[in-house]
Formats: sequence, C-alpha cells, structure tokens
Amino acid sequence: MKESSTLARVDADRLWADLMKIAEFTEPAKPYTRRCFSPLFTQARNWLKQRFTDCGVSVRIDAAGNLVGRLDGTAPGAGTIMMGSHCDTVSGGGRFDGVAGVIGALEIARSLKEQGFKPRHNLEFVDFLAEEANVFGLSCVGSRGMSGFLDEKMLAYSSPDGETLGQAITAVGGDEKRIVEAKRTDIRAFFELHIEQGPILENECHEIGLVTGIVGIRRIEIIFRGEADHAGTTPMRLRRDAAAAAAETMVLVRKLAEGMALLKQGHFVATVGFVEVQPNAANVVPESARMIVDVRSEDRALLEKFTAALDTATTVTAALLRVDREALTILSDSMPSSCNDDLRTLLGDCARDMRLSTRDLASGAGHDTGFISKIAPAAMVFVPCRKGKSHSADEWADSDALEEGANVVAEAIIRFDSR
Amino acid sequence: MKESSTLARVDADRLWADLMKIAEFTEPAKPYTRRCFSPLFTQARNWLKQRFTDCGVSVRIDAAGNLVGRLDGTAPGAGTIMMGSHCDTVSGGGRFDGVAGVIGALEIARSLKEQGFKPRHNLEFVDFLAEEANVFGLSCVGSRGMSGFLDEKMLAYSSPDGETLGQAITAVGGDEKRIVEAKRTDIRAFFELHIEQGPILENECHEIGLVTGIVGIRRIEIIFRGEADHAGTTPMRLRRDAAAAAAETMVLVRKLAEGMALLKQGHFVATVGFVEVQPNAANVVPESARMIVDVRSEDRALLEKFTAALDTATTVTAALLRVDREALTILSDSMPSSCNDDLRTLLGDCARDMRLSTRDLASGAGHDTGFISKIAPAAMVFVPCRKGKSHSADEWADSDALEEGANVVAEAIIRFDSR
Repeated sequence: MKESSTLARVDADRLWADLMKIAEFTEPAKPYTRRCFSPLFTQARNWLKQRFTDCGVSVRIDAAGNLVGRLDGTAPGAGTIMMGSHCDTVSGGGRFDGVAGVIGALEIARSLKEQGFKPRHNLEFVDFLAEEANVFGLSCVGSRGMSGFLDEKMLAYSSPDGETLGQAITAVGGDEKRIVEAKRTDIRAFFELHIEQGPILENECHEIGLVTGIVGIRRIEIIFRGEADHAGTTPMRLRRDAAAAAAETMVLVRKLAEGMALLKQGHFVATVGFVEVQPNAANVVPESARMIVDVRSEDRALLEKFTAALDTATTVTAALLRVDREALTILSDSMPSSCNDDLRTLLGDCARDMRLSTRDLASGAGHDTGFISKIAPAAMVFVPCRKGKSHSADEWADSDALEEGANVVAEAIIRFDSR
Repeated sequence: MKESSTLARVDADRLWADLMKIAEFTEPAKPYTRRCFSPLFTQARNWLKQRFTDCGVSVRIDAAGNLVGRLDGTAPGAGTIMMGSHCDTVSGGGRFDGVAGVIGALEIARSLKEQGFKPRHNLEFVDFLAEEANVFGLSCVGSRGMSGFLDEKMLAYSSPDGETLGQAITAVGGDEKRIVEAKRTDIRAFFELHIEQGPILENECHEIGLVTGIVGIRRIEIIFRGEADHAGTTPMRLRRDAAAAAAETMVLVRKLAEGMALLKQGHFVATVGFVEVQPNAANVVPESARMIVDVRSEDRALLEKFTAALDTATTVTAALLRVDREALTILSDSMPSSCNDDLRTLLGDCARDMRLSTRDLASGAGHDTGFISKIAPAAMVFVPCRKGKSHSADEWADSDALEEGANVVAEAIIRFDSR
C-alpha cells in the first residue's frame, strides 16, 4: 500500500465548479438539456476545448467527431492511456450522466499536469460524440467510430430535417470521408468515470463501483390483436380482448425477470415501459395492444432463454384469450460486453488504498466503454448518485463522490503508466 | 294462437328504404355520423317530420326536444302507448343503433294507419333527443326530460363553444323554461325496438331478444403511482413499477368478471378499455398508470361486491409491488333498471305466434328505455346484428331481422290496445 500522501488527488472544488459551469449550456425551458449536434452542444464543446487548452492540453476533433485532449508521452511507441465519456444529454436530462466523466477527465488532466506528471504513455481525454439517443436514432456514435463500428449505412441515417449523420459529424469538425481514420489501435487502457444511474451503491453504502460488464440490451415488440367490441354487450366468454393478453404478458415479464435475477448469473432486468392500447376507450373492448419489452443481461444465454420463454408464453396466452399474437419482433439487440479484469483489479487496488469501499457491479445502461472494450482493455468506475435517479433534472451526485471516483481513476492511470 | 293472416305486418322494403335514406344525413368523411344538435341532425329530423306528416301522423317537439308523432286514440283517458328510440349517432357510428327503432316506429305508424287500425289509446312515436354522448357530456337527454330526470344543473352543462344544454334544447324546438312539462304520466306502455349491439342472438340463432333489464354502469378510475427509474440500472427488487400494478389489476378485473358472470345473476361484464402509462418510454420503469374499469351488471349488489373486491385487491397489489394506489374513484354510476315483466311476456307471446325464436337477455348498453321505465311499464325488443358490431360503420342488421322486430312490436301494440 502506498502512503496516502503519494496518492493522486484532484481538486474537488474545481471539478465541481466546471461541472456546474457546463450545466449552464442548457435549453432554458428544459434543464438540463444539451442535445448532441445542437448549437448549445457546440457552445459547450468550445468552452470545453478552451478549458483543456488553458491547462496546456492540446485538443483536436477526430474523424468521428470526438473531442480529444492529449498530453504526449515520453516513451515512443508505448501507446495511449485514454479516459473519457460524453457531454451530450438526453432531453430533460441531468448534470452528471456522461459529463461527470468528461469534466473528471479535464480535472485529472489538469491535476496531473500541475503536479508535473510526465507520462510514458500518451494520455488522452475524450468527449465522445453523441452517446445519447439523438435525431439520427443512433447512440454511441463517437465510440462506435473510434472502435470501427460506424459503418456507411449508419452514416446515411438521416434526421427529420434530412441531414445525414455523416454530414452532422463533419459539421462538428469530424470528417465522414475519413471515418476509418478514427479507428484506434494504440489504446493500452481505457477508463470511464460515470454515475451509477442506479440505486445499488447508495443503498449498500459503497463509494466506488467496479464495473464487471455492460449488459446486452434487447428490445422486443409484442402486438396482440383481438376485436373491438362493445364493453357493455359483449359477454366475457365471447371477448377477444387484446389488452387482457398484454396485461398477462406484463405480469409474466415481471415474474420471469424476478426469477432470472435470482439465478445470480449477473445483472438481469426486464421492463414493460411502453404500452399502447387501441382504441383506448373505456367503453370498448380493446382491439389491439402493443408493448415493448426491454430486457438486459450480462449473460447472452439468459437473454435467449427469456426470449424463448416469452415467445411460448405469449403464444399460449393469446390462444387462451382468443386473440392473435400478431408480432413478437426483436427491434434491437446489443451484445453484452465485459470490462477488463486486469484494469478492474487495478482500480480496486487504488480504491482500497484510498480506504474507499468498493463493489463489483454490472452496468444496466449502455456506455461508450461498451464499444471501446472491443478494441482495448477498458474499465469503468461508477460513483453513487442520489436515489439512483438519472435522465432527469433531479439527477445528483455529491462532490465527494465525484472527487473519489476521479482520484481512483487518476491513481490507476499513474500506476498503469508506470508498469 | 291467432291466425297468421291476422297478425301485424309492416312493409319491410319501405322500412329498409327509409333506414337507408336517413343514413344519407351523415358527415361525408365519417359515415355514419349524425351528432345530435348538428345541422345534419336538424336536416334528418325535418325529413323525419315530413315522413310522419305524409302518412297522417301529427308531429310536435316536446319541451325536452323530443320529436313526437301522434295518432289520437278513440277512448278518452285511456292513456298513451308509446314507441321510440333515437336518430342521433356516435361519431363514426352506424345505420341501425337507435335509428332502427325510430324508422321502425315510423313504419309501424304508417302500416297501422294504412290498415285502418283505430287505437283506443293514443299512439306516440318518439325520436328521443341526444341519446348518445354529445358535446354536453350527457346522454339520454330527451328520455331524461320525459321521465323528469333532467334537472337545472344538467341544463346548465355547456359545450366547448359555451352554449348550454338548455339553450341547445330550445334551439331544436324544445323549451328549457318549460322542461317540467316534458314529464309524462299518461304512458301505459312503452316499447323500444333496437339492435342488440352484442353477439348473443346471432351466436345462438334467435330472432327476437326480450330484454329483461338494462345494466347499471359503473366507471371506476384507478391510479397507481410508483417511481420513474432507469429500466437498465434499477434491480427488479428495488422497482416501484406502476404499470406492473396496473397489469395485475387488469388480470384481476377479467378473472373477477368471468367469475361473476358465471354466478348467473344476470348479465355481468367488466372491461379495462383505457390504460395510460407515464412516461410510457421503453427504457423507463413506469412512474404512473391510470386505468378506467367499466363494470356493468343487472344486479346492483354485484356491482358493489365487485367494487369492494377491486378495492381490497388493488390495495394488496400496490403494497406487494411497493407502489401507491393513489386513487380508486367512482367516476360515474347508473342504477340498473328492469323492463316490465307483463310487457315482456306480451312481446314473447307475439313473437312465438309469429314462429320466431326468442331469448331473454339483458341490455349491456344504456337506452332511453332505462329512463322511461322509471315512469311507465317499458319493454325492449332486440334484433340480431352482424357479429354484434355497433358504433362503427360496419354495424349491420338484416332487413328480415328488422321486419320481424317491427312486426312483434306492432302486434304487441295492437294486443295491448285491445285489452
């Protein structure tokens, strides 16, 4: 164990002040909203660029539109240690999701520079482009680009205004024609600092979450079709009530997910967050019901088992209730990704040396780390956030928590660099 | 049993032709729509008035805005035999609901007159005002007025344009200031011919439905409130999913109603036709869920038992799923009403003499008969409609079915008159 006086230490007040400063780049009527590709986003990035430049970190925009701050290493060919997250937000989002990792990176860069740290590796501090869902319907745009998963088809996605994603990337300083150049092969270690966006760390009183992996997310659309009948005159036994089948399915989804979570094969959740009944009138037996099931697991096999069970159960339910199961469609499907064991161990050692309580946990949300993990050893540090709230103006993380998370990553960077 | 040659017989072709004719008074873009108080409604009534006048039936509008055709009886003080229904429609409605009973009454009046029938009682043929839901949010306006259930408060209901119901009644030829004069005490028998609006007669191959009563309708709003959490990061065991509670309740409503229908204490149905989930996004655990339960029973005690069971069960469900049952509110509540046994027996005798197959059944929908039954012996005849469809452009009844229904009512009027 190192002496505590020699451990990395960032300036918590400066970190917090910058976090509050960038939060001011928000749609006034809907705090805290800074959608990617908006003028506000560009303003925030210009401010961020200046902040990096002010402390002697050179800044560029890569071909995929990522803003990359850099401190050159002293050992040629040693490769790059990278840290980053994203500064765009969802509509009506908060002041911490993503941006905590970007301002954290800024503060780490600043602290290391001030402390005269001369890294052997190049150090890079990244604001990934468009991690959140946006007008092009594609998330993690920048990290996809950096990991080689941003293809021609995606670049052709268009916004409601008719602009393509490729054009939008070029407009923010990237270059859709040279997108392949964004792909990196020199990253030796990647770290992302992020709020948990869930309640586990707070509930269990841990300061640092060591992310084991990022869940695969499968979205399944189910449509039942029955018959719109008079709610007064149609006897129960002759009904073809599509919403009744949806309700049975919603109950099933919850019970199945609760069971699978108990298997302890990592994080497993399933949610029916969207339901649409037609014609949705109190006096009409529902003709159709559409629902989207969001299933997330670290274990791909469990996702498959869940889907198969849902397929069977909804078929039986539809038959019992005399309705048609018109569709069971996988709308989207992302593979689970694992974080790097070695880097997680390193982060854990740093945290424990700082006398911080840690817990291994999975990320139930997608992150840029998911893509970077495909091309480099990647790890994530979670810090607690109040009541697990995220994607809302109520999103909150304490300054202490952010400081501790940044210190752990800074120390891990230093130790990794010295190996 | 009477000789078949002496039984009442209407002109089926003429009935059908007039039914198709009045259907032409429809919003062109949304057949078959003839909302009460609209210019189309007034046009249709003017046409109807002329039709009555053409066959020697005098016509007036009573104080409640009902159009009343009349043939005076020969026996002073014998009172009135009345028949009627309504010619207004729901938006996107059909060509039979209500109007079958109005055109049926016109054809019966015409046939009886042609056949030289001299009734002892006065005969009245009524188009009740605004049976369907309308811009004033009150149904059965005319039959409420005729039975003394249209009060000052209701007359003050206003449309989105700011007109009051009282003003609208006056505008169609009624008189809101003399509304009490619409109340009748002279009705000795009331008959309403109507399509079933349900599938029972067609399914069981009966020609004539003899209505035992009209269900009481209770609308219950239930609101669950949980917490909007990230669908990926919130473990199953920590969720407060409002839609999960709604789904359990929907399943319960169906099972409870199926059970109560099996008790054979008359018609019992319950429906969750309206569900609203917030924020209704695939990746957010639902914060709130609102649903409306529509419960209908001939037996008031069963409605109370159902409500009590729902109250208990939703309280338990909410507790188990860690959400709040924010509301269980009775939005509206109408009492069941019974049809007159003597008149139903008479109608059944007439039908069987015509070699028509009959079935007793309840009306699961509200009707003008529900109000008239409060001031006079009242009965309803249902005829089958295709697949039980109603309140849609697909609504359909065969000409034969309508003819048979009208013949049964005409014969019942003749026999009642001769008692």
